[in-house]
Amino acid sequence: MNEPRIVTAAVIVIGNEILSGRTKDSNLNYLATGLTEIGIRLMEGRFIPDIEDVIVATVNELRAKHDYVFTTGGIGPTHDDITSASIAKAFGLNWVLHPRAEKLLLDHYGRENLTEARLRMAHTPEGADLIDNPVSVAPGIKIGNVYVLAGVPRICQAMFDGLKAQLKGGDKVLSRTVSGYVGEGTIARDLGALQERYTMLDIGSYPFFRGGKFGASFVIRGTEQAKIDAAAIELHDIIRNLGAEPIEGEPAA
Amino acid sequence: MNEPRIVTAAVIVIGNEILSGRTKDSNLNYLATGLTEIGIRLMEGRFIPDIEDVIVATVNELRAKHDYVFTTGGIGPTHDDITSASIAKAFGLNWVLHPRAEKLLLDHYGRENLTEARLRMAHTPEGADLIDNPVSVAPGIKIGNVYVLAGVPRICQAMFDGLKAQLKGGDKVLSRTVSGYVGEGTIARDLGALQERYTMLDIGSYPFFRGGKFGASFVIRGTEQAKIDAAAIELHDIIRNLGAEPIEGEPAA
Repeated sequence: MNEPRIVTAAVIVIGNEILSGRTKDSNLNYLATGLTEIGIRLMEGRFIPDIEDVIVATVNELRAKHDYVFTTGGIGPTHDDITSASIAKAFGLNWVLHPRAEKLLLDHYGRENLTEARLRMAHTPEGADLIDNPVSVAPGIKIGNVYVLAGVPRICQAMFDGLKAQLKGGDKVLSRTVSGYVGEGTIARDLGALQERYTMLDIGSYPFFRGGKFGASFVIRGTEQAKIDAAAIELHDIIRNLGAEPIEGEPAA
Repeated sequence: MNEPRIVTAAVIVIGNEILSGRTKDSNLNYLATGLTEIGIRLMEGRFIPDIEDVIVATVNELRAKHDYVFTTGGIGPTHDDITSASIAKAFGLNWVLHPRAEKLLLDHYGRENLTEARLRMAHTPEGADLIDNPVSVAPGIKIGNVYVLAGVPRICQAMFDGLKAQLKGGDKVLSRTVSGYVGEGTIARDLGALQERYTMLDIGSYPFFRGGKFGASFVIRGTEQAKIDAAAIELHDIIRNLGAEPIEGEPAA
């Protein structure tokens, strides 16, 4: 058995409006799901304010630790959009006008509407690549292993979808979910023993309350399908022995 | 003018299921909103996996930096619920049976159903206080400045609501929102100048697209209502000068 090839990522959600509660983030979940699909393991998420020093420190900590870092938020035209310049600072690079980004904005807005503020969106850390924005033109930025995406969910998600094919994942984490109307406290001992027999897998237990009954979904994750399936079969038996019926997947709502 | 009394917090969302994308977190936003209401500033959020070393390191880093730390997730009865024991380790404390938590579970489940697994939920770092769980009995934990809450949103939120009155906030961050159907790139220069005139305030710009038109909401935040109101009046003028009508609050959907 080979060691799995593990490729990791971190997501940094940047914005005072998230930390004040004004805005609900939905980008972390979108990126988490998309990264899992392509074999990249999201190891941590950071939610931080629009403060330059914090952005610089967080980006530098995480780009050293992970294969990929994705940021969301703070790349618009207003004074509070400081992500791009902060990331230039994190890399020790100048923040400069990117000719192709300028051309994109010029074609979109026309010379008379390409305000100085909008031109901020054509600045990148020196030597950065652009990330396509099919929604509102102003591009995202790739510098080193850091991908700088918009905060508006529709734009963030479109940028990510567009660059997904360039990202190189490792061995995918496969998963199989088995559910049952059993109390977590009732099944816990057998479930823990199952986890101990399958140390190469990660078995999670997630309780639910549906139609007036308690139950739980058990998610078996790992890189080897055969092991996952073997554990799932044992789990079916465990659930049956407790007098419940195993359900493949999540129970119907 | 006195310096504002600033009280800060961090939230740690613990769970592999969040990082894999299986589960959407909603607790961060709930806690962010509730903390803002009582004058506690959420300065950062961390999303981390169910890995003991990571929990220990993250809790120890953040409890030293902030007045309050809240964790969510990982306090159920199954083998993957390692938050409580990990926090004991972070504090260098034994993880012990808490007599009052045991009594709560005994009264709820009865002796015959109080499995060894469920009894895990009655263990806390030695000397911890309990946080009331009005939904499903098994308590949260308070140790030092760390509040350990459930991951299931209904339970997490009920625990937080119950303990809110004990939390001591600083000066509240007040806010006023003014919106307008103006492009961010059009208003950005005047908005940046407004921010420069009101350095004690934090002015955020959040674009929207509604009814086929672009606009933005401008959120003015600070601890002094009079300054906020003065900036809002200037902002009304800025929006009018751009030929749009200022809207108090968010525009109607």
